[in-house]
Amino acid sequence: MNDFIFHNPDRVYFGKNQMEHLAEEILKYGKRVLLVYGGGSIKKSGLYDSIMKLVSNNSIEIFELAGVEPNPRHTTVNRGAAICKKEKIDVILAVGGGSTIDCSKGIAAASLTENGDVWPLVSEGVWVTEALPIVAILTNAATGSEMDGWGVISNMDTNEKIGLGGSALIPKAAFENPEYSFSLPVYQTVCGAFDIFNHVLDNYYFAGDATFDLIMEMQEAVMRTVVKWVPVAMKNPENYEARANLMWASSMALNGVLDGGSVHGCACHFMEHELSAYYDITHGHGLAIITPRWLQYILNENTAAAIYRLGVKIFGVAEELEQMDGAQKAIDEVSAFCFETLGLKSTLTDLNITNEHFKEMAEHACCMDGVITGPMTLKPSDVESIYKMCL
Amino acid sequence: MNDFIFHNPDRVYFGKNQMEHLAEEILKYGKRVLLVYGGGSIKKSGLYDSIMKLVSNNSIEIFELAGVEPNPRHTTVNRGAAICKKEKIDVILAVGGGSTIDCSKGIAAASLTENGDVWPLVSEGVWVTEALPIVAILTNAATGSEMDGWGVISNMDTNEKIGLGGSALIPKAAFENPEYSFSLPVYQTVCGAFDIFNHVLDNYYFAGDATFDLIMEMQEAVMRTVVKWVPVAMKNPENYEARANLMWASSMALNGVLDGGSVHGCACHFMEHELSAYYDITHGHGLAIITPRWLQYILNENTAAAIYRLGVKIFGVAEELEQMDGAQKAIDEVSAFCFETLGLKSTLTDLNITNEHFKEMAEHACCMDGVITGPMTLKPSDVESIYKMCL
Repeated sequence: MNDFIFHNPDRVYFGKNQMEHLAEEILKYGKRVLLVYGGGSIKKSGLYDSIMKLVSNNSIEIFELAGVEPNPRHTTVNRGAAICKKEKIDVILAVGGGSTIDCSKGIAAASLTENGDVWPLVSEGVWVTEALPIVAILTNAATGSEMDGWGVISNMDTNEKIGLGGSALIPKAAFENPEYSFSLPVYQTVCGAFDIFNHVLDNYYFAGDATFDLIMEMQEAVMRTVVKWVPVAMKNPENYEARANLMWASSMALNGVLDGGSVHGCACHFMEHELSAYYDITHGHGLAIITPRWLQYILNENTAAAIYRLGVKIFGVAEELEQMDGAQKAIDEVSAFCFETLGLKSTLTDLNITNEHFKEMAEHACCMDGVITGPMTLKPSDVESIYKMCL
Repeated sequence: MNDFIFHNPDRVYFGKNQMEHLAEEILKYGKRVLLVYGGGSIKKSGLYDSIMKLVSNNSIEIFELAGVEPNPRHTTVNRGAAICKKEKIDVILAVGGGSTIDCSKGIAAASLTENGDVWPLVSEGVWVTEALPIVAILTNAATGSEMDGWGVISNMDTNEKIGLGGSALIPKAAFENPEYSFSLPVYQTVCGAFDIFNHVLDNYYFAGDATFDLIMEMQEAVMRTVVKWVPVAMKNPENYEARANLMWASSMALNGVLDGGSVHGCACHFMEHELSAYYDITHGHGLAIITPRWLQYILNENTAAAIYRLGVKIFGVAEELEQMDGAQKAIDEVSAFCFETLGLKSTLTDLNITNEHFKEMAEHACCMDGVITGPMTLKPSDVESIYKMCL
């Protein structure tokens, strides 16, 4: 069992009637606010107007960065950082899903550097300990960015999609109103839900010394909740209970509560980031295609027990099977969840992705340490094999 | 489903090799430290010496308050507050179990008041927003005080045992090394474990609108962990995994992660505090005697579903029973856990407690609102009936 440090000072306002606290949270840091958002959905939903009303009642001055992309670009981040420098912004208000919050984290970090360029921080893996404060309003249950210290930034010039992390990047406050996700289309709901599921799975205790029963129990609790409630949200997008369970699961998946000394391999995430970087596909869909193949690839006598346990605890696989058979049944259940329950297309071929770039993508995916660590250490050749299984 | 705010800025260092961070955490607040501890066990175990070595290497000046009682007295708290005032203490270092940390919270609050008396804060239910910073080193998995904003202080002159709460009372940092609980006697281990179990149960969604599946799942995860690992710790006190699971369960039970808009009825805790206040018994033992009787008393068609679910999820009660039968089976399982697995004496009579003070204790227990709220609202006459069931 590994030692660990737990620290998450984010203040989360969860529920329907929490926006009254928004001005109070912003005013802790100042009156000059950069509002960051994506497409026009927050204007259509009326959220933009209600934010404007709340802040104008408190003499808060708003500057805007709109149009953040689903995989946020470093160029967009840099535009935001330039506004922060020019307008002496005190606090960033991120309104949207993970992309918007991730972009805001890049801005928060870059705006305190001399040249306002986020890419050197990202590409050099700088751990960010100074940044502008961020307040987030979440509209999509997926990335966990509302409660963690990580953002993922894409450089489309170089086909790179890399995480930027740091203690200063945890939002100071997050507003999570499940109603804000009512208007989310089924495809985004499903992809977000699988992102949550995979965040937990990527962190599951597959093998080795990192065993902590309480943590596995809580990880399983979160995965079961996702598996139970995403079909409800698909059928009835305005089911508050379904949206609330998914939204809080999103935060729980990455806020440190499920870590407890586990080893964050992030294998599926590293492999998927290459797909998004090269083909700009939806992150959660890429993950759903990769995950069952990855489980199949890493299945061996070291990992079988945990994979079988996953099947039993999450999908109700029978307990009395031979271990390897049980693990195989568990992988089949993960597949069925991705491609039957969630209805996602099951191959990269379906997304018009060929093996053209697999070799360089695999090398990219391993660029941090030369391999991807986790329950099984993956060399670039392993990653390439897994990509081929996804065709 | 209720709205809620989640905020817990405590920084937890969990594991065997974390003490190197102790000086760093203390020095964030200053060099003048009040060390608070209970009996001599931290001297016997060598913990006292290793703390002294660590702090003296960093020119930290230590003042001491030793001899904190198992149910800490307001008079002891006031002695500590007097030292803080006189010696201009910067930070309190609490080393021990819940009683020591609770006592330290009282000191932290009282030392910033004019007269240094904690009792007016306690008796008037003041919400503490200013207090000296506390760093805690935990040696006993039980109360959750290492990660929450509550302490319980006893006034033996008036037979009162009351909680003192406030955002400023959450420790700034907590050190949780499961090895420090190796030397804990079986009785303390068992009583601590049941305290954890009851913290979660007191907060379980028995009825009404407060239903949040993810939270119930995580509550069940923590209760299952306690039920699984306490027998291991009883048999083998130096089993690291058992001690680690219990210790982290202690923190999880009350750090807000399992709240999520639930209604903190704390019925069993309010009723037990009277037993400790009148008879100075061990808190967890009192809880174990009360809990199954309380469940029996509140069992009705509103609460049966949740009580049955508890039985199924924690104790493996069969799923196909009639609801009321299933709930009864669940209560029987809780009893068996308390009195067979944990081996605790099962009645107040066994602890030489008679019905002599039940009437006034019941009134005391309801003194906050005239009733105890929760899954069933309990009037003083209900509380008296539950006490009688415990004879």
